[in-house]
Amino acid sequence: MRITTVGLDADDTLWHNETIFRLTQERMRDLLADVADEPAFNATLAAVEKRNLRLYGYGVKGFTLSMIETAMELTDGQPPGRVIADILAAGREMLGHPVEPLPGVDDALHELSESYRLVLITKGDLLHQEQKLAASGLGELFAAVEIVSEKDASTYERVFARHGTGAVEAAMCGNSMRSDILPALEAGAWAAHVPYPLTWAHEMADAPVGHGRFVELGSISEFPGWVKSLT
Amino acid sequence: MRITTVGLDADDTLWHNETIFRLTQERMRDLLADVADEPAFNATLAAVEKRNLRLYGYGVKGFTLSMIETAMELTDGQPPGRVIADILAAGREMLGHPVEPLPGVDDALHELSESYRLVLITKGDLLHQEQKLAASGLGELFAAVEIVSEKDASTYERVFARHGTGAVEAAMCGNSMRSDILPALEAGAWAAHVPYPLTWAHEMADAPVGHGRFVELGSISEFPGWVKSLT
Repeated sequence: MRITTVGLDADDTLWHNETIFRLTQERMRDLLADVADEPAFNATLAAVEKRNLRLYGYGVKGFTLSMIETAMELTDGQPPGRVIADILAAGREMLGHPVEPLPGVDDALHELSESYRLVLITKGDLLHQEQKLAASGLGELFAAVEIVSEKDASTYERVFARHGTGAVEAAMCGNSMRSDILPALEAGAWAAHVPYPLTWAHEMADAPVGHGRFVELGSISEFPGWVKSLT
Repeated sequence: MRITTVGLDADDTLWHNETIFRLTQERMRDLLADVADEPAFNATLAAVEKRNLRLYGYGVKGFTLSMIETAMELTDGQPPGRVIADILAAGREMLGHPVEPLPGVDDALHELSESYRLVLITKGDLLHQEQKLAASGLGELFAAVEIVSEKDASTYERVFARHGTGAVEAAMCGNSMRSDILPALEAGAWAAHVPYPLTWAHEMADAPVGHGRFVELGSISEFPGWVKSLT
């Protein structure tokens, strides 16, 4: 068994992401507390986001537009100007938010980069993901960066073929069972799930049962050891 | 002299783009005619877009957010709800707009694809560009698609090294002197400028004077013949 290439998810695997979305969402909920209670706000936003996902894809800009649309829906199309201004400002803040690697990430990536080709594989806004990687200080550890619009088995096949020696000699690490783990396994790669305390409902899926190439880890710090154990 | 790889810009080279932005812009200007005349509207939008470019990058979602911000500025932060709703709807329409190849594109790409590796090189929203390529029916003619956040000389070096035999054996075609032509020439590639009737001010630049690897063409239909003449 040989592993040549290691794929890593970015958001909520290398740095916080969902937390920042949730905090913004809470701020907006408070702003609209006069017109909608918490369940109503959450349900409307979730419905708007789901409806827009096909057009907007993943990322802060689409989220900002969906927040504005949610404010419109909850106020019969007449939101106070301040709410719109606050949503625009919140979106800009999210895009400019400082990026700090999660605990253990820096050491794990340095260790992995000595033995394997590292590839960042992430969804989201192209420009924003590039900016986050640059801000994280982790950019130089990666041999390649693939920002993709969807993560399915063919994505992992293509990326590991392009930047490595194919999926069967690759290991993937990420927090999303649905996007990082199941399709990477389907492509033939090994996959380690490192859960993040929060996960967007859209990214939820059941763990594979008794799969020989899958492992659940408590922290990314355990990931380099697991990859080494495969060879 | 050998050419192995041909790079093509997408927006306003293969299909209309700027026209759709301009039409949306005119619609919004009409909606806000009570509060701003044409020069005031245009100047405010241009200033907002310029300010946001670093954070939002290129594409419809960022443009939609900048339009909302422009409406806010022109109405002292209290735009009529209908304006916001119309801007959101216009953004969604732009994202769902049908994509029809410009005259001559289909034939030119078919001819080129018989002799060269075709690479689409474009800025903009990742998901939206992929959707436009799929909708155009041209997708299968391309050996590779590179959606990038910025087009500079190093972009062309990287893309033509990855998907071809380097920039010196590549020819680029596009409508933007600033993004498609000058940096491709700087990277060592050949470059053909095919102007589009409208060009976003941000993409303007002077044509190179007396450059041996540059040509100005009246239509993309002339591009295959020019590439063949190089070898």
